[in-house]
Amino acid sequence: MEKIAASIITIGDELLIGQVIDTNSAWMAQELNKNGIWVRHRLAVGDVWNDIWQALDEESRHSRIILVTGGLGPTADDITKPLLCEYFGGKLVFDEGALANVRNIFENILKRPMIERNLKQAEVPDVCTVIPNERGTAPGMWFEKEGVIYISMPGVPYEMKGMMSGYVLQALGNHFVLPAISHRTLLTAGIGESFLAEHISHFESALPDFIKLAYLPNYGMVRLRLTATGTNKELLEEQVLAQFDTLKRLVAEWMVIDEDLSLQQAVGKLLKQRGKTIGTAESCTGGYIAHLLTSIPGSSEFYTGSIVSYANTIKVEVLHVHPETIEKTGAVSEDTVRQMMQGALNLLKTDYVIATSGIMGPDGGTIEKPIGLVWVGVGDRENMKVQSFRFRFDRQRNIELTANNALNMLRKFILDNEIV
Amino acid sequence: MEKIAASIITIGDELLIGQVIDTNSAWMAQELNKNGIWVRHRLAVGDVWNDIWQALDEESRHSRIILVTGGLGPTADDITKPLLCEYFGGKLVFDEGALANVRNIFENILKRPMIERNLKQAEVPDVCTVIPNERGTAPGMWFEKEGVIYISMPGVPYEMKGMMSGYVLQALGNHFVLPAISHRTLLTAGIGESFLAEHISHFESALPDFIKLAYLPNYGMVRLRLTATGTNKELLEEQVLAQFDTLKRLVAEWMVIDEDLSLQQAVGKLLKQRGKTIGTAESCTGGYIAHLLTSIPGSSEFYTGSIVSYANTIKVEVLHVHPETIEKTGAVSEDTVRQMMQGALNLLKTDYVIATSGIMGPDGGTIEKPIGLVWVGVGDRENMKVQSFRFRFDRQRNIELTANNALNMLRKFILDNEIV
Repeated sequence: MEKIAASIITIGDELLIGQVIDTNSAWMAQELNKNGIWVRHRLAVGDVWNDIWQALDEESRHSRIILVTGGLGPTADDITKPLLCEYFGGKLVFDEGALANVRNIFENILKRPMIERNLKQAEVPDVCTVIPNERGTAPGMWFEKEGVIYISMPGVPYEMKGMMSGYVLQALGNHFVLPAISHRTLLTAGIGESFLAEHISHFESALPDFIKLAYLPNYGMVRLRLTATGTNKELLEEQVLAQFDTLKRLVAEWMVIDEDLSLQQAVGKLLKQRGKTIGTAESCTGGYIAHLLTSIPGSSEFYTGSIVSYANTIKVEVLHVHPETIEKTGAVSEDTVRQMMQGALNLLKTDYVIATSGIMGPDGGTIEKPIGLVWVGVGDRENMKVQSFRFRFDRQRNIELTANNALNMLRKFILDNEIV
Repeated sequence: MEKIAASIITIGDELLIGQVIDTNSAWMAQELNKNGIWVRHRLAVGDVWNDIWQALDEESRHSRIILVTGGLGPTADDITKPLLCEYFGGKLVFDEGALANVRNIFENILKRPMIERNLKQAEVPDVCTVIPNERGTAPGMWFEKEGVIYISMPGVPYEMKGMMSGYVLQALGNHFVLPAISHRTLLTAGIGESFLAEHISHFESALPDFIKLAYLPNYGMVRLRLTATGTNKELLEEQVLAQFDTLKRLVAEWMVIDEDLSLQQAVGKLLKQRGKTIGTAESCTGGYIAHLLTSIPGSSEFYTGSIVSYANTIKVEVLHVHPETIEKTGAVSEDTVRQMMQGALNLLKTDYVIATSGIMGPDGGTIEKPIGLVWVGVGDRENMKVQSFRFRFDRQRNIELTANNALNMLRKFILDNEIV
């Protein structure tokens, strides 16, 4: 079967001056992969006529599907629509459906008057098929030329996602004969990529050709993904599962979960299964662990609340850490973290707590307590486990690493303290 | 003066299956722009020999600088180094400096034994100039071929950033004659991109050719950036500043700050200037506002702590919201938010507080209180301002929008309640 390749082109100067991080492409790539479409290239170009034109030319030699996002906004620097019109040899006409959509959004949702620029969003080249936009004013466009499909969508993530899920993926599935795909993913923590690779090198080299193993490292964790490509979905799933079982046995010591979930989702699942709750007492992570947990839909089932005790006064007055402890051992210490946990257990009345205290940088380090030193505690009413870490990165990454290590400590604590 | 163009190529299957969001390119693009280098293309390709080879060929026709990241890790799927070796016609040799660096990292920092794979990281093509890596084991490489510079760096952000700041940017400045650049950026909130564009269209069309205006929208805010390019840095700065002053007057109503800062940084600055402190009582934002504030280095000067009262029991027992209020008006209501603020002021003893309560989705909505309904309050001991919002996005975006609107409400509250 022919492998169908896609190129994703994102348009916008903002991507090339680095003001905006492109999250669209990653999401699109995931969805395309799930549907058996191989993403060969992701390309970002500026709002420059020749560069966009050239990108369409070049990518059409690499891929049979060209997905274009961005450049459809109402401001003057958006040249994508006139360019597409000329590229495919059409002329701009008002699309009745798109016009009704723009009017409806302004009259019934935004409830403010339209201006000329807004109306112009309903114009499309007469050589395209319009892709309806249920979440915004700019319609999507589908073009075909010499066997290549070109799809233009707005750069607003929420609108693009609506078009992909509601129209594009299905239309591509109807147009092409796509291969069957089967994925299995597991998450590991506490082992580096190179050691993991060494540990499973025999497994990797013995994999059949149609199954690939990918290492996906991220903030002290490594995700392992097996992907099988073929024609018979059911058979592929069986074969991947057999390899996946072997892989799970090989990495059991470091495995967090045998699903494509984040660490916080894995912890949330563990808590929900046991009907237990968690709260946090955060100093150096400043509410980030709470944010990770509450980003999960339905987190109210296992998460109740947090005390972010950034200043020592909050540690003392809200969490009832003894002032003498802070004076004697400092706020970044095992004793302080133990008392923060005790305070959080009393105040939040959860089954488990996590506490953090550390120096995240770039300032505040001393010789005894350097930047990157963190104390993390996890526990319940019977037991506590407290551990220190030393991270060597920038503030943002130190916060991420502290949160990930804390969540993984809690996961192990729950499993280790279970009465079997 | 010739405009020097760069292409950024990121290598790795993980970018094309969408498991990883590429933050490297945005950072690199920012730094290159600041140094007068125009980024023409950003391209992501997989760990596929022919695709990488072809990308080097094609991009060398577009740009005089090719920056490559990724593909230098210790696992089997990394083919970049042997490819570069063949592409530039060299052979792999051990580099003494890189070898000493790998040994030092394992012996003195990681304190664990090395394996074969780690040692191999010190191998480089004999036709490159080695770029030292002070933050990891994989050395960077600098190649020249037919007037084009090729730079290969690891994909680990912390390591790549170290190489760019410590070596690459300066070396590029020595190699090329780069133009002078002057930027001025301001942040607006509360006005859509199209209305802003309409409002300042006369200003934009009257700008001289060497000054460009960019719209950079992000979560309900729009950043406006003026960029001047020329030869005399001092003169450019004067000319940009004059235009910037006009722009500031035009958008005064919506301007958050006249610097390239985030909203939370602007709020932090406002608080620091006044010697005031802030705390938060967060339900639906689940600690995200606390996280935004504590992501700023030195935030302990103005931020003391938060109560994340996700469950109603925490609202009642910790923040002392009346149970009858929750029973009568619900947790997502003006009254509850007012009492959350009062509780936070009493407990955290800060000058200002922010409180949030809402339904973030995807579940939990009713006809009276639909998904996306949020109550936000800001206040001090004398005054409170409470407002409801209705967001129509996914959970993550609803949380972001709530946090941004809350921070902007606080900013306005501080300015409005000042005794002049």
